[in-house]
Amino acid sequence: MLKLYYSPGACAMASHIALEEAHAEYELVKIDLRKGEQKTPDYLAINPAGVTPALVTELGVLTENAAIMAWLARTHPEANLADLDSPFQFARMQAFNGFLAASLHPAIGKAIFSHPALEGAAKVQAETAALAKYDLVEHHLLKGPWAMGEQYTVADGYLSVFTRWARLNDLLDRERFPKLNAHLNLVQSRPAVIKVLHLEGLQPALASHEPLVAH
Amino acid sequence: MLKLYYSPGACAMASHIALEEAHAEYELVKIDLRKGEQKTPDYLAINPAGVTPALVTELGVLTENAAIMAWLARTHPEANLADLDSPFQFARMQAFNGFLAASLHPAIGKAIFSHPALEGAAKVQAETAALAKYDLVEHHLLKGPWAMGEQYTVADGYLSVFTRWARLNDLLDRERFPKLNAHLNLVQSRPAVIKVLHLEGLQPALASHEPLVAH
Repeated sequence: MLKLYYSPGACAMASHIALEEAHAEYELVKIDLRKGEQKTPDYLAINPAGVTPALVTELGVLTENAAIMAWLARTHPEANLADLDSPFQFARMQAFNGFLAASLHPAIGKAIFSHPALEGAAKVQAETAALAKYDLVEHHLLKGPWAMGEQYTVADGYLSVFTRWARLNDLLDRERFPKLNAHLNLVQSRPAVIKVLHLEGLQPALASHEPLVAH
Repeated sequence: MLKLYYSPGACAMASHIALEEAHAEYELVKIDLRKGEQKTPDYLAINPAGVTPALVTELGVLTENAAIMAWLARTHPEANLADLDSPFQFARMQAFNGFLAASLHPAIGKAIFSHPALEGAAKVQAETAALAKYDLVEHHLLKGPWAMGEQYTVADGYLSVFTRWARLNDLLDRERFPKLNAHLNLVQSRPAVIKVLHLEGLQPALASHEPLVAH
């Protein structure tokens, strides 16, 4: 059976959502990033890079969300998690995921997860840089209603991880990011995502005007 | 015909190498990153992210090296640029490429391309962080002789971009990185790569004991 190493609410949630959307059978193994569990010898034997996610499969270990999600989409074609008929559309989706992994993730990570925490001008500068990446997704990359257009793909679960972080940190302004806010709400309404949040022990990220009650 | 927007010696060289290895027909359009040409309105209309590479195809524009290279491998199967029969092996290659894009590239970029240039302790710290990523490739990710094992894939051209940068900056120590040095030499001996270097107006990066003469 597949085994996903994840940390609650961290970026491995993208692969976790893809597993649920694919109706795959899998086990979860929690790696607490705040406790540094990703650097233990046991975990480094699974993923020498010392980061989550890692997905143990019968063929070996896969790492990197974009690679894990692409593999799940291809091996679970009945779940329609990507355009599998068009190498071009598949590559477009991978370009979207690549932008999230290499540009948006590090930018928002710096703004909200730096240790020691950024303060003052450095924090403002990091937030400004991160929000410019969200602007790009809002205005150019997110086709709507889903990332790639009319059909849900694994890119949507991935994007929702970062819009969730932004909303939880009061950075996903509704007037500046109407499409991203609508997209996050749509993703969070999916049964697979509701289940993932529950399994990771988390609440959905509600827009600021919504009451903060558990779903 | 395909059209690649690139900057000489920058990371788009990975897509350029893949085009040559695929024996694709393509045009080159030079975008000088040092002159900021990636931020002109004309180029932003092609890639709103304002970075290279961008590959214009008959179906639309592709961005992100890993996505472009995967598409070239899939649409040019006769070139054997990836294991196209195994979704798992293909995903392993994409995980390797994802690590280069999201971890190694920003780390070495910070060490050698920061503006203003890092100095003193900040430079040492950035180099140390970058070299730890190269250690990971040397000891865990590079199977040898090629990145994914016995067969050349697009991951090899991609890796060579960053080992080339490291060698040109005297960071690819031969004793610390014997596999990476051998790999770079192997990649630079391929006819496609020799042609790419020539087309971009560049010399191969020679190991420090080699004479600095043009090939």
